[in-house]
Amino acid sequence: MPVFVERASADRDSRVNPVLESALPRITPPPPIDSDKYEVIIAGSGPAGLMLSVCLAHYGIQSVLTVDKRPSTLKAGQADGIQPRTIEVLQSLDLAHEMLTQGCLLHEVAFWNPKTGGKGIERTAFVADVAVPSRYPHELTIHQGRIERILFQDLEKYGKKVQRGTDVVGFELKEDDKEWPVEVTLRDEQGDRKVRTKFLVGCDGAHSTVRKAMGLELEGDTTDHVWGVMDAVITSTFPDIRKRCAIHSSEGSIMIIPRERIPGGKVLTRVYCQMSSLENASKAESKAARNAITLERLTTQTAKALAPYTFSFSDVDWWAAYQIGQRTASAFSLADSNGVKRVHIAGDACHTHSPKAGQGMNVSMMDTYNLSFKLAHVLNGLAPPEILDTYESERLDIARQLIEFDTKFSSMFSGRIGEDSGLTHDEFVSVFRTGGGFTSGCGIEYGPGMLVDPQADVVKDGNRSLGLLWPGRRLMNVRTIRFADANPRNLQDDFASTGVYRILLMLPRSWRDQMNMQQVIQKYTSSIPDQFPRGAMETAIMYPGERGDIEWTDFPEAVRERNEWLLLGDAYGEAYTTFGVNEEVGAVAVVRPDGYVGMVGRVEETARVRAWLGGVLNAIPDGPQ
Amino acid sequence: MPVFVERASADRDSRVNPVLESALPRITPPPPIDSDKYEVIIAGSGPAGLMLSVCLAHYGIQSVLTVDKRPSTLKAGQADGIQPRTIEVLQSLDLAHEMLTQGCLLHEVAFWNPKTGGKGIERTAFVADVAVPSRYPHELTIHQGRIERILFQDLEKYGKKVQRGTDVVGFELKEDDKEWPVEVTLRDEQGDRKVRTKFLVGCDGAHSTVRKAMGLELEGDTTDHVWGVMDAVITSTFPDIRKRCAIHSSEGSIMIIPRERIPGGKVLTRVYCQMSSLENASKAESKAARNAITLERLTTQTAKALAPYTFSFSDVDWWAAYQIGQRTASAFSLADSNGVKRVHIAGDACHTHSPKAGQGMNVSMMDTYNLSFKLAHVLNGLAPPEILDTYESERLDIARQLIEFDTKFSSMFSGRIGEDSGLTHDEFVSVFRTGGGFTSGCGIEYGPGMLVDPQADVVKDGNRSLGLLWPGRRLMNVRTIRFADANPRNLQDDFASTGVYRILLMLPRSWRDQMNMQQVIQKYTSSIPDQFPRGAMETAIMYPGERGDIEWTDFPEAVRERNEWLLLGDAYGEAYTTFGVNEEVGAVAVVRPDGYVGMVGRVEETARVRAWLGGVLNAIPDGPQ
Ligand SMILES: Cc1cc2nc3c(=O)[nH]c(=O)nc-3n(C[C@H](O)[C@H](O)[C@H](O)COP(=O)(O)OP(=O)(O)OC[C@H]3O[C@@H](n4cnc5c(N)ncnc54)[C@H](O)[C@@H]3O)c2cc1C
Ligand SMILES: Cc1cc2nc3c(=O)[nH]c(=O)nc-3n(C[C@H](O)[C@H](O)[C@H](O)COP(=O)(O)OP(=O)(O)OC[C@H]3O[C@@H](n4cnc5c(N)ncnc54)[C@H](O)[C@@H]3O)c2cc1C
Repeated sequence: MPVFVERASADRDSRVNPVLESALPRITPPPPIDSDKYEVIIAGSGPAGLMLSVCLAHYGIQSVLTVDKRPSTLKAGQADGIQPRTIEVLQSLDLAHEMLTQGCLLHEVAFWNPKTGGKGIERTAFVADVAVPSRYPHELTIHQGRIERILFQDLEKYGKKVQRGTDVVGFELKEDDKEWPVEVTLRDEQGDRKVRTKFLVGCDGAHSTVRKAMGLELEGDTTDHVWGVMDAVITSTFPDIRKRCAIHSSEGSIMIIPRERIPGGKVLTRVYCQMSSLENASKAESKAARNAITLERLTTQTAKALAPYTFSFSDVDWWAAYQIGQRTASAFSLADSNGVKRVHIAGDACHTHSPKAGQGMNVSMMDTYNLSFKLAHVLNGLAPPEILDTYESERLDIARQLIEFDTKFSSMFSGRIGEDSGLTHDEFVSVFRTGGGFTSGCGIEYGPGMLVDPQADVVKDGNRSLGLLWPGRRLMNVRTIRFADANPRNLQDDFASTGVYRILLMLPRSWRDQMNMQQVIQKYTSSIPDQFPRGAMETAIMYPGERGDIEWTDFPEAVRERNEWLLLGDAYGEAYTTFGVNEEVGAVAVVRPDGYVGMVGRVEETARVRAWLGGVLNAIPDGPQ
Repeated sequence: MPVFVERASADRDSRVNPVLESALPRITPPPPIDSDKYEVIIAGSGPAGLMLSVCLAHYGIQSVLTVDKRPSTLKAGQADGIQPRTIEVLQSLDLAHEMLTQGCLLHEVAFWNPKTGGKGIERTAFVADVAVPSRYPHELTIHQGRIERILFQDLEKYGKKVQRGTDVVGFELKEDDKEWPVEVTLRDEQGDRKVRTKFLVGCDGAHSTVRKAMGLELEGDTTDHVWGVMDAVITSTFPDIRKRCAIHSSEGSIMIIPRERIPGGKVLTRVYCQMSSLENASKAESKAARNAITLERLTTQTAKALAPYTFSFSDVDWWAAYQIGQRTASAFSLADSNGVKRVHIAGDACHTHSPKAGQGMNVSMMDTYNLSFKLAHVLNGLAPPEILDTYESERLDIARQLIEFDTKFSSMFSGRIGEDSGLTHDEFVSVFRTGGGFTSGCGIEYGPGMLVDPQADVVKDGNRSLGLLWPGRRLMNVRTIRFADANPRNLQDDFASTGVYRILLMLPRSWRDQMNMQQVIQKYTSSIPDQFPRGAMETAIMYPGERGDIEWTDFPEAVRERNEWLLLGDAYGEAYTTFGVNEEVGAVAVVRPDGYVGMVGRVEETARVRAWLGGVLNAIPDGPQ
């Protein structure tokens, strides 16, 4: 007996596997479908190139070509550390799940030092791995090839691929075609061919062809310290093998980085081991010193530093010898004759440094994450091309800070504690901790410019790394409760990386009693957004405290119509406090598509908000004023 | 300058995309690769069939054929609610992520009733949607077709597929071949063919061919109430449209189930609407009544019940009319002449009921989740075939409880409040709340039997639904901190669905001072597991409180060697308290592969633990005693 009578309407494939729908609005005409023309060409599909490809796909940019000369993804070695801010960003793209559940999370660092008055080593302290507040209070390690695979699989969901076995061998700016001024030469098995693009991004690693064709070099030094690194399955009586360890022994320094589990019930561990110090060596001598390092030397040295604990190993996944160097390019972008930045470099193509602070892959991905929304906005006609200038100004600054930190950290690490250098354990731990804001990525602050208005009187100043709603800093995560459905929410999940700007209106406590507040809310929810292309911005409204007797009818109708999912209560008392916003006064902020605060102001400063947005987004020419 | 010199060893594909490695040990010879022979044949790939296919794949059972007569996955309609316990299980298979992030989470229920002394309706109360403690304190809604897609994609990771367009038309027990006694007839476009299997599972829905071939019928009644249900995009001034609502109006009852967002910035809502009541209708009359229901009648009726709030709709995804019926099969399994249960039915094939308590899909998946590890263990030679008897005894009991609850809940819901029936709002809310243990799935308790030893003196009795470590109940989630790496852990994540038994040893506070404790730990970590096939069980050890000065050397060596990842500290003070275990005394439990507690005992009862395990697992014949 058919108890059910049912009628289903049209095909519902999109319900079963939803088109991941976050495409940005596009004002410009769609690009031609042409295998000789791509709006963006990305040279290289390492972490930097993949992050850029993924972000552009999420924003709905269709005409993108990613090429890589490697025939396949990375199989072993290289980077393995993901920093808290990078996890936040991956989460904002819904890419963090596998890494968080199957990677290794580093919550604690153990410091080991020469045993006082004896041979061997002893544990001096356990310290939290991440020293600044962060949604993810830990680093995460997992093999770079796996991270690349995760990004690559996401790209495939959008019907995109990397064209492998294809080299970018050079480019020329040819302004005969103003719209497609970059001519890129590609080389594959079939030979060379020339394609045109609006923007070329060199994510092609330390030996970047694109950088060289821009006439740039990496500038800086290589120090004299030679280090070895290995990924293997280790058996040891050393008690802290599953924790990040900084070990200074009288036999030299080693660093232990626990890693993910691999098939066969085994666990990888990465060991960095100090090998030798060359004084004023020539390039040839340096190379010889690196080449002289063998797996045997590396493991013998590690065993010595770990003594009296036992050390044996198997399943060597990868090992390498390297010298520490800190180098950076003096520019990241190249403009055409109109001043439009057409060619960019990112990642290892513009900065290299020691791997020990776990920065390489992170800074590389954050470079292109920063660039991606700017490219998308310019291509879609949402933003003026000058916004591209902020890529270099924001990221070159970070690269310089990175080089500076790394120089300090590496040389301390290569020094010996309590001996010649006079470096004490406490000094080392202190550099480790104060560096934590930078290395975690959470302490980054972009300087004033088109995308950052530094004025911040409405926020209580203090230690900005604690999560203040501060121009140039990322929006810290806080927990809220959504009005519409009483769901506890992480604010960062409501500010996902979909390429849009978001007004965050934090109402003062007495908002229902203030005459002008309805009008202010109306401005932020409809009058201002209506002046820009539909879908280029959203408005989130937050009220202090619990829901109480608030009803939809307490707000202008537009709030429910347009921002039903972005009405949030500070029920946990986290938001106003963390952000440094006075509940009596409230505040308004604009958060950039990459999750950094662009401006903050007083609730009533609707005109200032409108003006700031007008600087980064093109208003509709005939739109309402 | 190549600053790095590197050596990577052999191919590392498995590091990039790890073989999802949780295969159970196998004592029996591997099955032949034969397209006419499968160790398990699964008829139907709805929620029940897919869950079974996925679990068997996770356990490493290779020779499985899943067929379905439907040419594609479900596109619209049917079930949409996932209960807290089902989410826990999906999480234990790493399948919950997309549902949790993209489904709709129901945290609150709003009760609406006829306005006192007026027309229309008014909100009487907000109540938490889930009344019992649970790792996930909410239901979750998302279209059944999407859930099927998520399960199906997971299956594909294991290289498995569903053979679509293929009907199971019947089976016969043919004991000429004792190993492959079930002959199944399959029908597809090419005609009929016969295949052999060890076990046939009918997950073929309410009209189950397998059930009929077993000679069973669904027994029970269909009531006289006719209901309509629709999935659509709704626009309304009704304030609680994003919350689960039970609305009793003087125009009849409706229930609102908020649903996931769909492309186009839209949101689905499911509405159940009471249509008509037939007294003692014949089958033909009932059918006519259902057929008479149109979308227009459904929406008009909904609008009336919601008045004075506005109601309009678009994008009708699916709608149906149904009568409430509660029916169940009297048996779930069929034995061969040796008493081995060879054919089973699960899901709608053995029980159907009203959809309003959101049970259908859940109970169906939990049926096959229960069955899956038992099949795998028998196939791999790990368990005696009698373990299959517990499928029927455990799940038939649940089906009966379900029917009983549903009968009560549905009739109350079809009644009118404050009018004829004398049903009060408070009574209704009370049934809703007390039923919550059952409907959430978290209150389920399997009765005594081979897999549940009811003796539980070591646990403080009380309200077992609060999470006591109680035989027959699921292991409640608690947070702990892992010793090896200081990671905060959810205990349920360490008890994932990999098909193994787990001894949970909860040490007494003074464990380091007790003479015999080293020996007890040694027993649970090595002596007992060594008597069973390697990989069939794991041991988790928990200690009260913080890590303090505990070191690896405080434990027998076997703990670090074998259970490095399962040494957990009750640092949050959640485990002993929630489980009802006295910290001074401790306890030991064995948790079944499906996450239910099989037995609990005093720490010293090593022999009892060994004996219980010996009842459910085959010991190694020549193994240590
Ligand atoms: C041997 C080695 C060991 C490392 N070890 C560590 C470590 O231990 N810890 C750590 O944090 N970091 C380490 N790093 C650094 C880290 O891997 C990088 O910072 C990170 O990979 C940078 O990402 P990227 O995308 O900028 O460059 P890359 O990952 O180098 O990717 C560049 C990509 O571009 C491709 N490519 C290059 N030229 C062209 C071209 N002309 N045309 C097309 N494609 C091209 C390459 O094939 C490559 O896939 C290591 C790097 C190397 C090379
Ligand atoms: C029209 C309808 C509306 C429903 N609405 C709701 C609701 O609103 N809420 C709710 O909670 N539940 C609802 N349910 C119930 C819910 O969908 C079921 O409880 C759930 O799907 C049961 O899962 P299952 O795998 O046991 O069976 P099904 O989902 O029915 O799957 C059975 C599968 O077996 C296949 N099959 C059948 N016979 C054969 C054969 N002989 N050979 C091979 N394959 C075969 C079918 O094609 C189907 O794919 C509804 C069910 C139906 C049919």
